[in-house]
Amino acid sequence: MKLAIKQAKKGLGLTSPNPPVGAIIVDKNGTIIGKGYHHRAGEAHAEINAIHNSLKKYPASVFKKATLYVTLEPCSSHGNTGACTDAIIRHQFSRVVYACPDPNPQHQGRAKQCLMKNNITVTDGILHQEAQHLIRYFTKGLTTGLPWVIAKSAMTLDARTTLPPGQGPWITSSQALEDVQRLRSQVDAILIGGATLRHDNPHLTLRGKYARSNYTQPARIISSLSGDFPQSCHVFTDEYRDKTQTFTKKSLRFILKRLAKQGIQSVMIESGGKLLANALKNDLIDEIVFYYAPIIGGGSTQAVQINDISKKLRSIQMKKLGPDIRISGLIQQP
Amino acid sequence: MKLAIKQAKKGLGLTSPNPPVGAIIVDKNGTIIGKGYHHRAGEAHAEINAIHNSLKKYPASVFKKATLYVTLEPCSSHGNTGACTDAIIRHQFSRVVYACPDPNPQHQGRAKQCLMKNNITVTDGILHQEAQHLIRYFTKGLTTGLPWVIAKSAMTLDARTTLPPGQGPWITSSQALEDVQRLRSQVDAILIGGATLRHDNPHLTLRGKYARSNYTQPARIISSLSGDFPQSCHVFTDEYRDKTQTFTKKSLRFILKRLAKQGIQSVMIESGGKLLANALKNDLIDEIVFYYAPIIGGGSTQAVQINDISKKLRSIQMKKLGPDIRISGLIQQP
Repeated sequence: MKLAIKQAKKGLGLTSPNPPVGAIIVDKNGTIIGKGYHHRAGEAHAEINAIHNSLKKYPASVFKKATLYVTLEPCSSHGNTGACTDAIIRHQFSRVVYACPDPNPQHQGRAKQCLMKNNITVTDGILHQEAQHLIRYFTKGLTTGLPWVIAKSAMTLDARTTLPPGQGPWITSSQALEDVQRLRSQVDAILIGGATLRHDNPHLTLRGKYARSNYTQPARIISSLSGDFPQSCHVFTDEYRDKTQTFTKKSLRFILKRLAKQGIQSVMIESGGKLLANALKNDLIDEIVFYYAPIIGGGSTQAVQINDISKKLRSIQMKKLGPDIRISGLIQQP
Repeated sequence: MKLAIKQAKKGLGLTSPNPPVGAIIVDKNGTIIGKGYHHRAGEAHAEINAIHNSLKKYPASVFKKATLYVTLEPCSSHGNTGACTDAIIRHQFSRVVYACPDPNPQHQGRAKQCLMKNNITVTDGILHQEAQHLIRYFTKGLTTGLPWVIAKSAMTLDARTTLPPGQGPWITSSQALEDVQRLRSQVDAILIGGATLRHDNPHLTLRGKYARSNYTQPARIISSLSGDFPQSCHVFTDEYRDKTQTFTKKSLRFILKRLAKQGIQSVMIESGGKLLANALKNDLIDEIVFYYAPIIGGGSTQAVQINDISKKLRSIQMKKLGPDIRISGLIQQP
């Protein structure tokens, strides 16, 4: 299953609105005979890619005593592609092992029943948590009608996002900037406030290797109370300007719901501390990614402008990125 | 030399006002024949302990072709104990390797010269940085007349030291508390402000295994502008009350200089954000140790109450301590 998850990760940022999924086929002797992952919505599912991968080297009879490992319960409905359960049954697999059940309550367990009826042994729940994390955008959209929201911020060790006046602009390390590009490549949209737009005039695009690969440029969402959107800003003039949407005097929840309806499953908020505080208060943040520079002290701008609520996090992770430290975690929902 | 540093670390927190030092003796075949460290001021130096350790198993003639590895340039002056250079020469070592030179400008290089005159090969600078770090308290006192100052704080990920009103007191994890005990065992004094004394009534003592071992309880220093020191507080009533000193309306620099004159080489500030900011502004902090709890948002109390200066850090390190993350580093002095 670890290898199946590794396969799934190859699809990160590429499969929306589908989740990334990976599959591994193992023959009766325990030899890996095929692997595959879901590359892009509308294209073949991981299971089918793994079957095709096996068929390059082995006859179809090899599946009869084989086990299919897949990170998500196989689909049992005919969407753009045929149902995976049909293919599994047709090839007479002896066993299917999957990590998480279909998050759609109407489909959950359907493949399991269907496969078992056809005398295929089914095991589920293997590496459940890790696989669940991979499809968190998809699950959130399906179960709440809201996108998965990541709050990203870069700050000093005492949580300032600016340096004192006269000490120059905030400079994050190249390693942290590269990491932000990786995060952007995995989300459908980036959201900022009007103040950030007017102050920083950011591009909010994928650049470098992320722009040159198969990733889609993220949608750019600007939320403003004043409705002051200077039309000379990059987001309104560059080649991706059709990917920019503005909202005036709309609640964050309204905006996020609207985005979900457009098929946007994941949003990264790259805003100042005020919008971030607002999102936190309204229980709209699922995940945080904070970059800490090796600096103490700074300007008066706090990364999170809040002093009447607190939220606990779980699954805290840390990583050194050049001179900086990245801390990430998931907000414990109330 | 790595093993010598490992030896030296055994003396951490026990040797003040001397630095922790470790030594290893290797015979002509590269076999380790002795090891030792400085246990406590007034007792034998690391080199002598390593020689004695060798003599338990080997005749004195073994030193003739042996190399002595020691983390600090051996002493060449007769203090409480005889000069280590005398012992090294008497035992006719063939080579001495040390990591850092004596930080005392008047002694620096004296042992080197003295040993070389006696036909002993001398190599220095091996693992210099790591060994230098071990004796930083000692070096700072010797070269500046001020103690080495560590700023310790525990905060949320957005640098608040309190939770919002009504959400209970701040609770650091047991792992972080244990780590604070370890830090306390390695410093000569702990300094807080009068506000912290009145608000928290802390013990500022070594507890548990640190209290039961050979560590000395740290001096407890309270700095206050108002001079309001409630005499019922633990620091004035417990069994270590003779270790408490108060200062009223004295600058932090004045207090630290006074402490240095008392032989205090290291001070940990465990204060609120105001005193910490004051210390930072006055370039009195050498090292920071911040504990981050997996919480975002909090009360209005900021860990560092500053918005007109910033300080860069180097040698940033991070460690997971239960649910918390510890980030430490050294302030780059101007």
